[in-house]
Amino acid sequence: MTIELDVTAPISPDLPAAERRARIPAGFLAGGRAAGIKASGRPDLALVVTTSGPAAAAAVFTPNAFAAAPVRRSRAALEISGGRASAIVSTSGSANAATGEDGDADQARVGELVAASLGVPEGEVLHLSTGIIGTRLPLDRVAAGVDALVPELAATDDGLESVAVALRTTDTVTKVSTVAIALPGLDGGLHEVRVSGIAKGVGMIHPRMATMLAVILTDAAAAPSLLTSILRPAAARTWDQLSVDGDTSTNDTVFLLASGASPAAAVQAGTPAAAALAGAVEAVARDLARQQAADGEGATCLLTCQVTGATDDADARAVARAVISSSLVKAAAHGKDPNWGRVAGAAGNGRLADAAILEAAGLSASEAATRAGSPALVEPARLRIAIAGHLVFDGAAGGPQSFDRAAARAAMDAPEIVIRLDLGLGDGAGEAFGCDLTELYVIENSEYTT
Amino acid sequence: MTIELDVTAPISPDLPAAERRARIPAGFLAGGRAAGIKASGRPDLALVVTTSGPAAAAAVFTPNAFAAAPVRRSRAALEISGGRASAIVSTSGSANAATGEDGDADQARVGELVAASLGVPEGEVLHLSTGIIGTRLPLDRVAAGVDALVPELAATDDGLESVAVALRTTDTVTKVSTVAIALPGLDGGLHEVRVSGIAKGVGMIHPRMATMLAVILTDAAAAPSLLTSILRPAAARTWDQLSVDGDTSTNDTVFLLASGASPAAAVQAGTPAAAALAGAVEAVARDLARQQAADGEGATCLLTCQVTGATDDADARAVARAVISSSLVKAAAHGKDPNWGRVAGAAGNGRLADAAILEAAGLSASEAATRAGSPALVEPARLRIAIAGHLVFDGAAGGPQSFDRAAARAAMDAPEIVIRLDLGLGDGAGEAFGCDLTELYVIENSEYTT
Repeated sequence: MTIELDVTAPISPDLPAAERRARIPAGFLAGGRAAGIKASGRPDLALVVTTSGPAAAAAVFTPNAFAAAPVRRSRAALEISGGRASAIVSTSGSANAATGEDGDADQARVGELVAASLGVPEGEVLHLSTGIIGTRLPLDRVAAGVDALVPELAATDDGLESVAVALRTTDTVTKVSTVAIALPGLDGGLHEVRVSGIAKGVGMIHPRMATMLAVILTDAAAAPSLLTSILRPAAARTWDQLSVDGDTSTNDTVFLLASGASPAAAVQAGTPAAAALAGAVEAVARDLARQQAADGEGATCLLTCQVTGATDDADARAVARAVISSSLVKAAAHGKDPNWGRVAGAAGNGRLADAAILEAAGLSASEAATRAGSPALVEPARLRIAIAGHLVFDGAAGGPQSFDRAAARAAMDAPEIVIRLDLGLGDGAGEAFGCDLTELYVIENSEYTT
Repeated sequence: MTIELDVTAPISPDLPAAERRARIPAGFLAGGRAAGIKASGRPDLALVVTTSGPAAAAAVFTPNAFAAAPVRRSRAALEISGGRASAIVSTSGSANAATGEDGDADQARVGELVAASLGVPEGEVLHLSTGIIGTRLPLDRVAAGVDALVPELAATDDGLESVAVALRTTDTVTKVSTVAIALPGLDGGLHEVRVSGIAKGVGMIHPRMATMLAVILTDAAAAPSLLTSILRPAAARTWDQLSVDGDTSTNDTVFLLASGASPAAAVQAGTPAAAALAGAVEAVARDLARQQAADGEGATCLLTCQVTGATDDADARAVARAVISSSLVKAAAHGKDPNWGRVAGAAGNGRLADAAILEAAGLSASEAATRAGSPALVEPARLRIAIAGHLVFDGAAGGPQSFDRAAARAAMDAPEIVIRLDLGLGDGAGEAFGCDLTELYVIENSEYTT
């Protein structure tokens, strides 16, 4: 079969449009402030709290064996509460990673402080932390900060945006995204439901390890199991397809909380409302992941790879991830070089994700186990490659294509470079997000010393 | 269990010592010359030929889906000949990759030229090529070069070194290695057997893709099946543990040829002689891989990670590979920063190799399939890390250790930085080879444009 490759029209999943504002959904209050954890005096403490009882919650955590204390504490809390949360506390400046049992005790104390201040069970407090590895949290400052912050919390966009600001480490921009959908209520009418996300990530100048943190809030009513079934595949298609430098952090965490404060009816699995909510969550996740890639350390552009015509979606995602992860492709993107040889070589190295991610993306457990890490199917004679809208390689037409090199270089001099591949094998599609590799990345990460 | 971590004594596999000379084994002639494939006029054509009938041969090839014409031709030749080879022809300047059926025809013509010139079957000619992707071989120049080169071939070290020189693209040094072992002859005495290797790799300034090529020659007598059983695990422990930038080439090839010209008796599988030969092959492979890592694009130092105390060797190799592949660890090495947080984070991301490599390294097919891509077992509370001889982290002793930071930084300012990890879990050991990440790498690969 042959699939038409429209090299000028970037494909995107059919998702609702996200706007880059932090419109807080009903049922949540949020805010951030400077508590003195960071020496710079910048905001470093934030809280998200629910206004009428615990929210349903789901999470995705780092698979790193060095998972930090806040990750372990959050995981335990969700198990104890059965997927309910009344607050998220975040600190930046110290990752509380590789701090051993002392670090675990510190994080537990943070949970107790927040729980006492809000009057909720400590098991309903979730934790986020980012910053320097191996340093302890300054508990006295965190305690004073929590006491000062709780009365300041507000149900305004500023409140949620403040949380995003307080999460930042070396991020150069604040990452926020909101999607609004209409879901049916018990009254028969449609009601606006918001899905709002914030994220930080991909900075490593001062902290010693990348940390990718994200929070998505919605006022929809949904059970924790439904949220989990929505969040895991959405993360597999977005954050698991994001790479700045191939290093997976000790602190990576994504939370999805649903307050149920909307007048819309509770969302049931398998209904159109569940599909709409899932689409909104994925749209927010995708928008945040793209913002994170574009703000990658030292990066000057977003590098997107979109793959069609793969045997299936898992193969397509593997190939897309291989392309945007290639140091050579990343360097070529920096040089505005339509170097299709590097893209072809990277595509030929596509490997499927590990079993957990494949299962999250929808494969059966046995299929995920069988295919984990295996090569994606790519046949050079069927492959077509377009860089920034220019068809540069067509395997079925002799391979290398003549194209307007100057025009291609000019088209690559843009905030986003899109590399399109059509594998000519089936209906699988997928995408991945990265950034160019620059001298600044090396300088930031080598000149900084501990 | 606790394993002592002697942070000052780098471990190495128990292998024979390799000397960095290209002493050609008996039964081979070799030479290289400039045939005009490269515009620079540098040597770009080389031949290795056998002097008395075909040698036994084994090979390891790139898994890249875009495997180049010389790779496909060599693979076919070995299948047809049943593991016999009378010549290796190598060209540099053009990779003959992504050139489609025309490229296949070109490579076949090269084989015919060499076969006719030497009077051997075309199916006994093996092929190597490296250089720019997507360009065709200049067959007239190759033909004239082969005609001129054949009479010049000599059984001298210069001959084999000339081959190594002619393989070079952006390599800054020529990579050669020889190990001599003594094997019993039918006369009851011991006879010197040589195992000599040459390699090129890890340059990408002018060509558009890294290519890793290596040839190991020995005058031992051994069947192709024995050579394969020796080469595959040796490659799994050496070249599969080598990473400069994570990009796997379209042309990667390793050949092992045994002429049988030594007076030593034919080496039989399962004997001490087979073990000695395997040790010599691995020693040469390891030495060449280390030379390649040290000469990585833009690199200023060799970065070695040695892991002990893993559950098994496969886990140890996975962790070692994760550490030397981490962009953050590589940048820290460049900055002479004993940044243990990055090492710990990278170690926590160790993933086992794919099934083919695991099987090559000795796992059963079913175990390889089950474990491929799975996380290596690392327990932070048992992990110890030493950087350049300084113990920086001890999970069982509270984690971060105080150490002389200035002394550690000074120790890292060396041609080789050794990172030692003891996982405290078992007896598995392994190592991996990389290099630092420098601004020069980015400049070389972004400022060059097609």
